[in-house]
Amino acid sequence: MADPSPKPVPLLKDELDIVIPTIRNLDFLEMWRPFFEQYHLIIVQDGDPNKTIKVPEGFDYELYNRNDINRILGPKANCISFKDSACRCFGYMVSKKKYIYTIDDDCFVAKDPSGKNINALEQHIKNLLSPATPFFFNTLYDPYREGADFVRGYPFSLREGAPTAVSHGLWLNIPDYDAPTQLVKPRERNTRYVDAVLTIPKGTLFPMCGMNLAFDRELIGPAMYFGLMGDGQPIGRYDDMWAGWCVKVICDHLGLGVKTGLPYIWHSKASNPFVNLKKEYKGIFWQEEIIPFFQSATLPKECTSVQKCYIELSKQVKEKLGAVDPYFNKLADAMVTWIEAWDELNNTSEQTTSKQANGAAK
Amino acid sequence: MADPSPKPVPLLKDELDIVIPTIRNLDFLEMWRPFFEQYHLIIVQDGDPNKTIKVPEGFDYELYNRNDINRILGPKANCISFKDSACRCFGYMVSKKKYIYTIDDDCFVAKDPSGKNINALEQHIKNLLSPATPFFFNTLYDPYREGADFVRGYPFSLREGAPTAVSHGLWLNIPDYDAPTQLVKPRERNTRYVDAVLTIPKGTLFPMCGMNLAFDRELIGPAMYFGLMGDGQPIGRYDDMWAGWCVKVICDHLGLGVKTGLPYIWHSKASNPFVNLKKEYKGIFWQEEIIPFFQSATLPKECTSVQKCYIELSKQVKEKLGAVDPYFNKLADAMVTWIEAWDELNNTSEQTTSKQANGAAK
Repeated sequence: MADPSPKPVPLLKDELDIVIPTIRNLDFLEMWRPFFEQYHLIIVQDGDPNKTIKVPEGFDYELYNRNDINRILGPKANCISFKDSACRCFGYMVSKKKYIYTIDDDCFVAKDPSGKNINALEQHIKNLLSPATPFFFNTLYDPYREGADFVRGYPFSLREGAPTAVSHGLWLNIPDYDAPTQLVKPRERNTRYVDAVLTIPKGTLFPMCGMNLAFDRELIGPAMYFGLMGDGQPIGRYDDMWAGWCVKVICDHLGLGVKTGLPYIWHSKASNPFVNLKKEYKGIFWQEEIIPFFQSATLPKECTSVQKCYIELSKQVKEKLGAVDPYFNKLADAMVTWIEAWDELNNTSEQTTSKQANGAAK
Repeated sequence: MADPSPKPVPLLKDELDIVIPTIRNLDFLEMWRPFFEQYHLIIVQDGDPNKTIKVPEGFDYELYNRNDINRILGPKANCISFKDSACRCFGYMVSKKKYIYTIDDDCFVAKDPSGKNINALEQHIKNLLSPATPFFFNTLYDPYREGADFVRGYPFSLREGAPTAVSHGLWLNIPDYDAPTQLVKPRERNTRYVDAVLTIPKGTLFPMCGMNLAFDRELIGPAMYFGLMGDGQPIGRYDDMWAGWCVKVICDHLGLGVKTGLPYIWHSKASNPFVNLKKEYKGIFWQEEIIPFFQSATLPKECTSVQKCYIELSKQVKEKLGAVDPYFNKLADAMVTWIEAWDELNNTSEQTTSKQANGAAK
């Protein structure tokens, strides 16, 4: 006799991995069970590799601790941060799937204004599977969404859109503020549900947060490097920002789209602003030079794959940001190591090149 | 004895004019009475000047018909369109106030999700009086709004923002679609209330709709020319688009911000798509060349006032778009006439120059 109520197969079930960096037991997954249970998880354990991380029953997962990372990458493991959630990008590298969703373990299921639990992953998938509109702004937001379209005056030649590489989701409750803002506004909570998804226009940078983020690994994966943060590094909490700047410059060059907006998750806990300030303070003044660097960065035509773009960007980082601090020379080297490790594990440097070229030509 | 309940004085009561182009009695103002009654209206009567337009009692207004426009501008009146709502820009020119709000006479008061009537004008004023953020994208939308701020990774040097020149409001019910989309989706209604205001990033063009629009006349007024449309012209329904492209290029050059999003009005009536198609069809293919032209247009440093920018832009229009159709030569000439007429009526070409320079330097 057949199961009377078989679970419906969720979107992209076998084409998406959920990457979670953590230092604790993953009880938060209980709340996500209805939405995550049928997907494969990649857990990247940060900190002490001898600690055991408990994962609730019924989830399908693989877990990597520092010993695993060292064993798999050998000397190239030095490009993966330690004692920092930047280590999550190792999960992007070992995944064999086309799509990645990454979420922090202090993020819970949020409710929409009608009180319904939001299936964040489903919304990310919708964002990734529909085109983006980086070349012209649509005032009614995502024109591919039901009940919306391109408005009067939107060029018809641009209505096919561009492939979407990144879907950046937002946070209710604790907003993603820097340490100074946390210190100044300790009680501020985000309660505004903005019912929109929009494409960040070509040529515009944005602060990409890694808390609730999905992307197309084949289109942009090799650029999703979260840099050198945490243990032994002069900076923290800029891992996702670094990735976001690089990703956006490369997406703009390759004609790919980056979306932001829905879905929301419920961010449960503000991190300690004093600890954050210590991690961030160099970033706070470095970013005043880093951002103009990325705003003016251009990539030559020959850069037809994400890997080629990323290697070129690493050269420019060394050349232009090396003078800001020697850290950027180390980071530029790590960017190269990251690409080498990515290609070794994925064995796709040629394959990705031609895929990228197709993607960009669309 | 004092009035027991004096009406509160609304924001910018003596610094803002409401400009309404119309061909019919303005019964729609009844619905707006609580929000508009204390402001001054400038009504631009389109079409037959012998027709009498009835304005509900109690409104303070001045009304201009075609005879008035011809009398006031003399031979320069040929830059003001006839039999097209583009004539509204005459109202911008004769206003003596710092701010303008313009609204179509088929736009009613919309309700927010809680069922409350939306004071569209008040929201526009809030948008105009708070800074814009054109140089970097803030993922939580308007950082100056209550309950929001700049997110982690937003450069501190950019948090002062830029002066806001334009506030572009949206429409519930009938969306602002072009004729082909109207024909394909005759029953589509916009029911999504997106609770956001955002700055359109520097370098990105957008389709500016004139239905529900506010701007700072001192900062950008001379660029708000709605072009040559309607009677005797090969094109219609591109008046606001034309203004939007010019305005955005000039705002980007002068370091001014353009916001879009809230407030919504209730757009009551879809215009006839067959009539619209006739007006639009040349625009539909011309815009494929016009938009790349504006996307790549750059203004020299010497253009330090809106007027100088606009005259320079008119030269580039003639040079680059004249080949598309002779209409653009005529339009380029009208752009110059418009600026001459503006300066004549406002007697502020020098004054505006220095104000602009201050605005841009902020």
